[in-house]
Amino acid sequence: MIDEPNNWGRFGPDDQRGTLNLLTPAVVLDALRSATTGEVLSLAMPIRGATSSPAPTTVPHLPGRPLPQHFMSVDGGDYAAGARPIGEGLRVADDALLVTHHGTTTHMDALCHMWSGDELYNGHPAARVRSYGATRCGIERVGGVVARGVLFDVPRRLGLDHLPADHRISAGLLADIATPRPGDVAVIRTGWPRVWERSREHYWSGQPGLSAAAGRWLAAHDVAAVAADNAAIGGLDARGRAGESLADDLHLILLHRHGIHLIEMLWLEELGEELDAAGRAEFVFVAAPLRIEGGTGSPLTPLAVL
Amino acid sequence: MIDEPNNWGRFGPDDQRGTLNLLTPAVVLDALRSATTGEVLSLAMPIRGATSSPAPTTVPHLPGRPLPQHFMSVDGGDYAAGARPIGEGLRVADDALLVTHHGTTTHMDALCHMWSGDELYNGHPAARVRSYGATRCGIERVGGVVARGVLFDVPRRLGLDHLPADHRISAGLLADIATPRPGDVAVIRTGWPRVWERSREHYWSGQPGLSAAAGRWLAAHDVAAVAADNAAIGGLDARGRAGESLADDLHLILLHRHGIHLIEMLWLEELGEELDAAGRAEFVFVAAPLRIEGGTGSPLTPLAVL
Amino acid sequence: MIDEPNNWGRFGPDDQRGTLNLLTPAVVLDALRSATTGEVLSLAMPIRGATSSPAPTTVPHLPGRPLPQHFMSVDGGDYAAGARPIGEGLRVADDALLVTHHGTTTHMDALCHMWSGDELYNGHPAARVRSYGATRCGIERVGGVVARGVLFDVPRRLGLDHLPADHRISAGLLADIATPRPGDVAVIRTGWPRVWERSREHYWSGQPGLSAAAGRWLAAHDVAAVAADNAAIGGLDARGRAGESLADDLHLILLHRHGIHLIEMLWLEELGEELDAAGRAEFVFVAAPLRIEGGTGSPLTPLAVL
Amino acid sequence: MIDEPNNWGRFGPDDQRGTLNLLTPAVVLDALRSATTGEVLSLAMPIRGATSSPAPTTVPHLPGRPLPQHFMSVDGGDYAAGARPIGEGLRVADDALLVTHHGTTTHMDALCHMWSGDELYNGHPAARVRSYGATRCGIERVGGVVARGVLFDVPRRLGLDHLPADHRISAGLLADIATPRPGDVAVIRTGWPRVWERSREHYWSGQPGLSAAAGRWLAAHDVAAVAADNAAIGGLDARGRAGESLADDLHLILLHRHGIHLIEMLWLEELGEELDAAGRAEFVFVAAPLRIEGGTGSPLTPLAVL
Repeated sequence: MIDEPNNWGRFGPDDQRGTLNLLTPAVVLDALRSATTGEVLSLAMPIRGATSSPAPTTVPHLPGRPLPQHFMSVDGGDYAAGARPIGEGLRVADDALLVTHHGTTTHMDALCHMWSGDELYNGHPAARVRSYGATRCGIERVGGVVARGVLFDVPRRLGLDHLPADHRISAGLLADIATPRPGDVAVIRTGWPRVWERSREHYWSGQPGLSAAAGRWLAAHDVAAVAADNAAIGGLDARGRAGESLADDLHLILLHRHGIHLIEMLWLEELGEELDAAGRAEFVFVAAPLRIEGGTGSPLTPLAVL
Repeated sequence: MIDEPNNWGRFGPDDQRGTLNLLTPAVVLDALRSATTGEVLSLAMPIRGATSSPAPTTVPHLPGRPLPQHFMSVDGGDYAAGARPIGEGLRVADDALLVTHHGTTTHMDALCHMWSGDELYNGHPAARVRSYGATRCGIERVGGVVARGVLFDVPRRLGLDHLPADHRISAGLLADIATPRPGDVAVIRTGWPRVWERSREHYWSGQPGLSAAAGRWLAAHDVAAVAADNAAIGGLDARGRAGESLADDLHLILLHRHGIHLIEMLWLEELGEELDAAGRAEFVFVAAPLRIEGGTGSPLTPLAVL
Repeated sequence: MIDEPNNWGRFGPDDQRGTLNLLTPAVVLDALRSATTGEVLSLAMPIRGATSSPAPTTVPHLPGRPLPQHFMSVDGGDYAAGARPIGEGLRVADDALLVTHHGTTTHMDALCHMWSGDELYNGHPAARVRSYGATRCGIERVGGVVARGVLFDVPRRLGLDHLPADHRISAGLLADIATPRPGDVAVIRTGWPRVWERSREHYWSGQPGLSAAAGRWLAAHDVAAVAADNAAIGGLDARGRAGESLADDLHLILLHRHGIHLIEMLWLEELGEELDAAGRAEFVFVAAPLRIEGGTGSPLTPLAVL
Repeated sequence: MIDEPNNWGRFGPDDQRGTLNLLTPAVVLDALRSATTGEVLSLAMPIRGATSSPAPTTVPHLPGRPLPQHFMSVDGGDYAAGARPIGEGLRVADDALLVTHHGTTTHMDALCHMWSGDELYNGHPAARVRSYGATRCGIERVGGVVARGVLFDVPRRLGLDHLPADHRISAGLLADIATPRPGDVAVIRTGWPRVWERSREHYWSGQPGLSAAAGRWLAAHDVAAVAADNAAIGGLDARGRAGESLADDLHLILLHRHGIHLIEMLWLEELGEELDAAGRAEFVFVAAPLRIEGGTGSPLTPLAVL
């Protein structure tokens, strides 16, 4: 591995959960005290089926990614058309969902999602990530995340609606806003999803994100996870590439070297407003990916309890 | 509608969230106080792809339902076979999931999942549940559920590993165990998932569940949701049918008449053991379905914080 | 039904195959005589998975349609990564395909694909086309089509590479090229797929197609099916609409009123060149949709035997 | 490679089509003369969606394989429920199909479907069969097959409805029935699909198939392809295994060593009856797999023209 700070071995030679290990029961119990009003906010963007009604509008996603497909296998229309109810008169609607979450919807990255060389986080062999799933560092290792969330509302700090596409957030700017404690989830707002509604071309022209130095700073502060509202934690250039060297690649700094799970494409607009109005940055952050055995990640609905 | 107790109109003529409305910020804040140790448990069963490795083993599901399919679109095997890394050496694993959640995995039912006649909960027209999704009472109305959970560990109370297939839990038995407060999530353990490991024929021979009287009792206590470890909240007979009259059908009592969301096919074994050891029944229950617009439900990973 | 020429009742009150009934054994046997060289050409465009390799290129499709997804459930990469062979050393690659064929790939339309009012072709109730498939006029009614094909190579006749987007082929122009006999498959070349390689914006700016008069002329000549290389037999305007009145809509003239199956998005470039070089327009046309019960159509690979 | 007869190198060092190369235009033209009545028969089994109506019945398939899923994205029920037509009154039904064809439906195997060691047919590296498809020997190499078919109706010859599960057809028995010419498609009837209707347990108890000697005999006669009505050309034992040594494995003899494409799970019942009544064994065989780039095979509808 590149000679860079890392958490390999820190949580034991077999560890597959990285800094989620910092979420001991005592830390969780303490995190719950961050709730002061009890208001619950969903931090997920909608999952809108590509086969939806005559003129589907979409939600932010990276270009060229297969969009979620949502199918109804029985619905109210069938009964309107004369389908027989079940038994004495029971009617049912049922559906199926196909989702390729990376780049299309709010999702969590498993530690097996990115690496360099032949080893995943903590030296697990990348060769165990196969067509029938990852038997190392899959998303099912996560269980659930209950932690204190700290919002880094960067555009608000800078007096902007959203960061420009080429902005890379510095470590100093993060430090100006807040200093996370070990086991906190750092939640990074760039405001970029707001751009989608105005112009998808603008949305696809690049994305703001963390600088490598900011990633190292977060890792050095032992965050349990990093969550952000952009589609790639370190931003993207106009060609949809992270465009960093291996040493500075945010996914490698966080997922690969430090075992820090990432949650991407959150919707943070109401959270930003409410915390700003309340004059605070902390809240209870909850995230629970689907228990997909061997998955490289999962769609999910993170929650904030204020 | 059948002349039965119900919540239609109670939360306003347009309401699509039912008793989740009882989860006011004050109730949520109070619920968080149920956590005393900070231990976090996942209550989800694994999602195991039907296309998994040479000899896939499955997890509890109803017969004849399409099992989840999990596909890797790029993985470590591709790099072992010579695929070129991205840029300077970045490697990535990506996947897709197809899931028909009802009957196959831990999931939440939307209020549009079942009804009788031509109206969903609260009188919404069933004709709005169409092939491109439900524009009334879809799963995206839920947001997130943060509540006090109360475990009704019925087999433990009866000194059994699991309830027999034809057991229908009485209201009196529930009342012996605990009395939920408004806004609580009633979590019902039958122990039935344990049967799967021994014999899937046994698992499919029927399922224990709530009696209609128990369903009415829970509704009368204004629970925010009902969660259970069986595949149909009211149990199933050997033919896989609920076998009740419309008046007594549990989905109609809870989802349709009272707007009480259901969460089915949970894994409650560790939760039962830990709460029993601690001599308590209460905990923090968190559930956040995927924000599928117009979905009839969603796979999810509910959490318990003890 | 609109007072227009039609085939309702012509092939019996229960008929679900329309003019495919004209393909009697004698007609088929005669059609086989159109082969003079024995050369076999595929008339299908590639099906390229949306999840394909790092920089997937796509093939002609309508915008906003979900592209085919092709997943490998086990492959050579898995063995390169150390997966154990089956038995003594057998290795296997397996895959899955998800395809929404209308608008994305070479496909055949079932007679249940389009209608107006409450009745499909021949008066079958449209209410029988439900979420679990069409029990009337589904694609499984087709079986296979073996017929004489007649190529109407319109751009070649006009000395063009391809027709302009707003060109609507007149009946007179068809008649100048050839006159189909009953049971022939009329194959219409517009050359529009060639546009894709230069610019997908151009491809999506509209599409050339048949005029309503040309559709009526083909129907009056009792063709067994109409096949074309554009994405909608009657062309599209810049907004992706057929833009015709109901009376003049090509799908209604052909599918709905006359029971003439359509095959769209063919690749006809080599066929056009070879027939031109040979100075003829006729060949053996073979098409066999997947036997999807209740399907509204099917992807397929039509063949020409010259 | 095992020291066994093979076609590696025979059709050139880069060949990916195997004995389909024998189907020269002259051979095709001659094959078309096998049609004497012009009757067209579909040789495909139905594709029935696993999400089909309330009580779906299935069609023959191997246990544990994911069944096809067929979804309607808009249908007649939606209009019955009040969905607005398109434009002036056009109504449309659209659908999607997910199919894992091996073991579930009538399909063709690509030459990349099975191998031993590190090389596919003709020495192509197996490492080129990756998650994003096979860049060697994929199903798109086939194009279309138009050939003379020769039916080996083995149970009819033996006076049986179907062969017993453990029957392995000898080369001598094939030779008694017919002798294929180079470029013929050998079509093997076992009658096993008939068993499905009586008992799926019986169907799954094993399958009759070709003996290794019969496979070698067919290869020595230079058939263009082998098609059969069982789910694995060489039969299966009660555990669903081919149960042969590598030398005798039918997929290796045919696909891997000789480049002979396989078509499995055909429906041959009517074909058998009609050819028997006509006192002949030959017909025109047509098969055209979907042009799935990099696919390991394809569902398809083979046709017989009598």
